[in-house]
Amino acid sequence: MLGRFLSLEGGEGAGKSTQVRALADALQALGRATLITREPGGSEGAEAIRALLMQGDAGRWSARSEALLFAAARADHVEKVIRPALDAGTWVICDRYLDSSRAYQGTAGGIADADVLALHAFGSAELLPDRTYLLTLPVHVGAGRAAARDGAAADRFAARDPSYHDAVAAAFERIAEQEPARVRRIDAAQDSRAVTTAILADLAPWLR
Amino acid sequence: MLGRFLSLEGGEGAGKSTQVRALADALQALGRATLITREPGGSEGAEAIRALLMQGDAGRWSARSEALLFAAARADHVEKVIRPALDAGTWVICDRYLDSSRAYQGTAGGIADADVLALHAFGSAELLPDRTYLLTLPVHVGAGRAAARDGAAADRFAARDPSYHDAVAAAFERIAEQEPARVRRIDAAQDSRAVTTAILADLAPWLR
Repeated sequence: MLGRFLSLEGGEGAGKSTQVRALADALQALGRATLITREPGGSEGAEAIRALLMQGDAGRWSARSEALLFAAARADHVEKVIRPALDAGTWVICDRYLDSSRAYQGTAGGIADADVLALHAFGSAELLPDRTYLLTLPVHVGAGRAAARDGAAADRFAARDPSYHDAVAAAFERIAEQEPARVRRIDAAQDSRAVTTAILADLAPWLR
Repeated sequence: MLGRFLSLEGGEGAGKSTQVRALADALQALGRATLITREPGGSEGAEAIRALLMQGDAGRWSARSEALLFAAARADHVEKVIRPALDAGTWVICDRYLDSSRAYQGTAGGIADADVLALHAFGSAELLPDRTYLLTLPVHVGAGRAAARDGAAADRFAARDPSYHDAVAAAFERIAEQEPARVRRIDAAQDSRAVTTAILADLAPWLR
């Protein structure tokens, strides 16, 4: 059977990690080999880069250094983990992927979308998910959920101000509008089971 | 007074670090504010990336991940250290810079030179040294010197096989041919004082 590459995207507190796990459980129950992974990270090298990216103060890296580090981590993750899994027929479910770079480093960080895509072309031969689920939630609701979850442990990105997160949300919406065949919007204000059900309903044609 | 940006390039064991120090001593004796730095590294963030690049086995990173990491480190180094120093009128002497990426990740690593230059344009706005000194030495002589110096502590690059280092040397020669106004070849088989004297003679017009 063919493996599929799925990514979950959205702002802080949208429930991505919960949905990644619920989706993996459902796919495994349907007999699909499934791999859960995340970005930045997901491979040994990329996790080492993740530590550089997520720790320290918000201004530790310039937007350009940051975009290069994310592209380096993604290149390692794709080569060492994602492509081998897909080649083996495994379903890959990734918590954040390229669209997060386009939204966070791109629109919200001031890097041109074309540059983020050029780095992805160089590092990862433009590999895109077969389907991306954008979990949508008003920014203040997501921020409240993330704060309740993480307390004072917010990382370099979660710690930024509301206008940054508004720009991230607007960027995700724009990507969803531009690529409707790949990116599906899912209302993350729903009960978490209803979110999983909506994703599985969308995947049904690939699961027959 | 105007600061100048100098880089020293060459294979393993060519004497770059020795010449960087000798050059800094000479420039300081002439009353020039001087900063010694190196790549990969040279800034707090870039040194953290350096640790990822230099440690581990030779195949730890793909050539593309490696090129992105070098570009990220260089972007941080340029923004946080090199540009501020040049703006303050300081002479900056850098042990390796972009040409090493072109030779090691580019020619010897299989990445197109245009791609290495595109990453540099993205990360560091194409900043080039005012003058680059290429210390030339037969590969087997340099390897012998480096082995005598480092013993078993060779890093991920020094540990590669002779054909890799031949490709690096050829790439440096090609860059010197293509950019004669910036890159000056210096025979590193000479006595180390003669090498310093040759470099200072070349710099004389900027030191009057």
